[in-house]
Amino acid sequence: MAVRVEGFRAAGVHCGLKKEGARDLALIVSDRPAAAAGMFTRNRFPGAPVIVSKRHLRGRVARAVVVNSRISNVGTGEGGIADAREMARAVAGEIGARASEVQVASTGVIGWRLPMDKILDGIPTAVARLSPTGWTRAARAIMTTDTRPKLAHASSRGGTLVGIAKGAGMIEPDMATMLCYLATDLAVEPAFLRAALREAVEPTLNALTIDGETSTSDTTVLLANGARGNRPITAGSARAGELRRMLGDVLGALTEKLARDGEGVTKLADVVVRGARSDAAARRVALRIAGSALVKTALFGGDPNWGRVVQALGDAGVPFRPAEVGVTFGGVEMLRHGQPVEDPGALKRAERAMRRSRIEIAVSIGRGAGSARVLTTDLSYEYVRINAEYTT
Amino acid sequence: MAVRVEGFRAAGVHCGLKKEGARDLALIVSDRPAAAAGMFTRNRFPGAPVIVSKRHLRGRVARAVVVNSRISNVGTGEGGIADAREMARAVAGEIGARASEVQVASTGVIGWRLPMDKILDGIPTAVARLSPTGWTRAARAIMTTDTRPKLAHASSRGGTLVGIAKGAGMIEPDMATMLCYLATDLAVEPAFLRAALREAVEPTLNALTIDGETSTSDTTVLLANGARGNRPITAGSARAGELRRMLGDVLGALTEKLARDGEGVTKLADVVVRGARSDAAARRVALRIAGSALVKTALFGGDPNWGRVVQALGDAGVPFRPAEVGVTFGGVEMLRHGQPVEDPGALKRAERAMRRSRIEIAVSIGRGAGSARVLTTDLSYEYVRINAEYTT
Repeated sequence: MAVRVEGFRAAGVHCGLKKEGARDLALIVSDRPAAAAGMFTRNRFPGAPVIVSKRHLRGRVARAVVVNSRISNVGTGEGGIADAREMARAVAGEIGARASEVQVASTGVIGWRLPMDKILDGIPTAVARLSPTGWTRAARAIMTTDTRPKLAHASSRGGTLVGIAKGAGMIEPDMATMLCYLATDLAVEPAFLRAALREAVEPTLNALTIDGETSTSDTTVLLANGARGNRPITAGSARAGELRRMLGDVLGALTEKLARDGEGVTKLADVVVRGARSDAAARRVALRIAGSALVKTALFGGDPNWGRVVQALGDAGVPFRPAEVGVTFGGVEMLRHGQPVEDPGALKRAERAMRRSRIEIAVSIGRGAGSARVLTTDLSYEYVRINAEYTT
Repeated sequence: MAVRVEGFRAAGVHCGLKKEGARDLALIVSDRPAAAAGMFTRNRFPGAPVIVSKRHLRGRVARAVVVNSRISNVGTGEGGIADAREMARAVAGEIGARASEVQVASTGVIGWRLPMDKILDGIPTAVARLSPTGWTRAARAIMTTDTRPKLAHASSRGGTLVGIAKGAGMIEPDMATMLCYLATDLAVEPAFLRAALREAVEPTLNALTIDGETSTSDTTVLLANGARGNRPITAGSARAGELRRMLGDVLGALTEKLARDGEGVTKLADVVVRGARSDAAARRVALRIAGSALVKTALFGGDPNWGRVVQALGDAGVPFRPAEVGVTFGGVEMLRHGQPVEDPGALKRAERAMRRSRIEIAVSIGRGAGSARVLTTDLSYEYVRINAEYTT
């Protein structure tokens, strides 16, 4: 049974950007103004839709989201800004909203202008196809190099939350933008909506590293339209936990789907760092290890290569004492007090653990209380094949 | 004719670490105490030889350098420190020097203890084979995944400088340590030797990025034994420029050799950044662009993909105005004032430029006086093949 969120309809249609009739224009519409919160790329060369959507979000209200795939509208100057605005205006006109109530995104090739005639023709088509069960079609329409649509949802006693996302491939990284749109039929007070989104994104989308690149278009937007008629949830509400849990579940599931669909990915690893002086220091170390091409190729090769882990650790810019460092792979201790564990069975057990599709690499760097967890993927492919076959 | 440096002899022998008799132990000996300067990895998990060599270098004098390949003596705790010291002591005993006058390095697999019996047997053999023309054999003995020995030299009116180096492959990065040893027969005052080395390394070895990893063993050491009998060169000497030029030439040549021998490398690119507020800001941007997997795959694919360049630029943490950004590939302007150049011929000319084996990617980010230049390599191989074939 397809997921529904009260008061929301979604569509994904073909407007002529992708080949062979593939869906390339997504639309999400709320039947009433929804509280809206968003997080955008920190890249200093952002795409035009990011600039326009951030401006629109100042009102903290949205009625709709429109996204095209195939062309990103990045590096297109003032003309690109005008195009993004026109997309918003066209949707607003069709559904009877203000342009500032429309969130816009484009994902795909950088530097091309959008063929606005196709998009403007496609918008009324998308509006006509809006359906309460249109989420998978919308998820499909925002795909670029993704091999499958990414959709997750959660329900509570009083409401439902749905999310769609697109990745984060490594192969055609011009198109590696991460987009994520979330919608709930609960009423949520705007300040708490914003806080809850940030809090939920930190350990999920913001704790995933695939190729270390920050796209010019990364966007996450959450709409709460209150169609269930509840009193708006605030940070102090008894129901605050309900929203937090649903957001955590949906974003966690989408993050795993994004990671698994990274091109060529065969394995995931949770990099867990403990014993740092602060959570921030632990996170810095975890991101450095998770982003290391050497660690990722070892992961692909199933090699519990603690040497690569400590090499990355040593390069993270965080102080530690080598004699206090420990490393485990899938729970098997390989390095203790900065020295290899002298147990011939440990290597075998660690190698066995590395065969799982998701493993944990835990690094202890001292006696501090700071810890962090980051999700990463392996690096496969021929160039990496040789790297991975080289074994300690 | 093989290069000679007065008062220096070198050897490269097989002591039993590599297979099939390949040279795995290098020795360089000066017939008199030489002024010595060094630069070492900033990785916080350094190998035992790095710890020992830094300590030995406090005296600013060295008589010899001993290097084994195949095993790196990293992550080996106190036992590894003792092994590195023993290598130095053994060389010192053979040549009649103090142990603190011997520089030690090991490069190869992390986490294994050195088979000291083989190394201690090999040292007298190496001493017996020392020869004024032994540099290429020494260069061969420090190789790990390198496909060819790396040697460069320069001469002036009054002296000679020789350098050997090993890379920096991407395929077996456990062994990707960069080692570089330089020897000159000029007399150089120690403080100036140190300053001149740092100054010459900055735009050469320190301006090369291959896979963004910092090895636990990176080492560069320069010896000046004064066998030519000149008065020691200082920063104020008329001959200071002579040393600087030779160092720049030799380190520049070795850097290019290291880059060209990166596994799978087919092309080099000079990333030049101008218009930044400071040289440091320009360098930060240049390193971010040069290190981007997306830029490097575009280089391999011969794609003048300015979108990837500005994406990396936007992620470098340096402020700029998008409307002031320009990008050229091989001198062909592709982006001007933040927007694509509307010239159909430009793409063709840029694509032609990208076919060269070394091209320049120049990025202008504003009106400041800060500039920087960094050398990078392409990323080839199957995983990248798909990436490269995707074209704008």
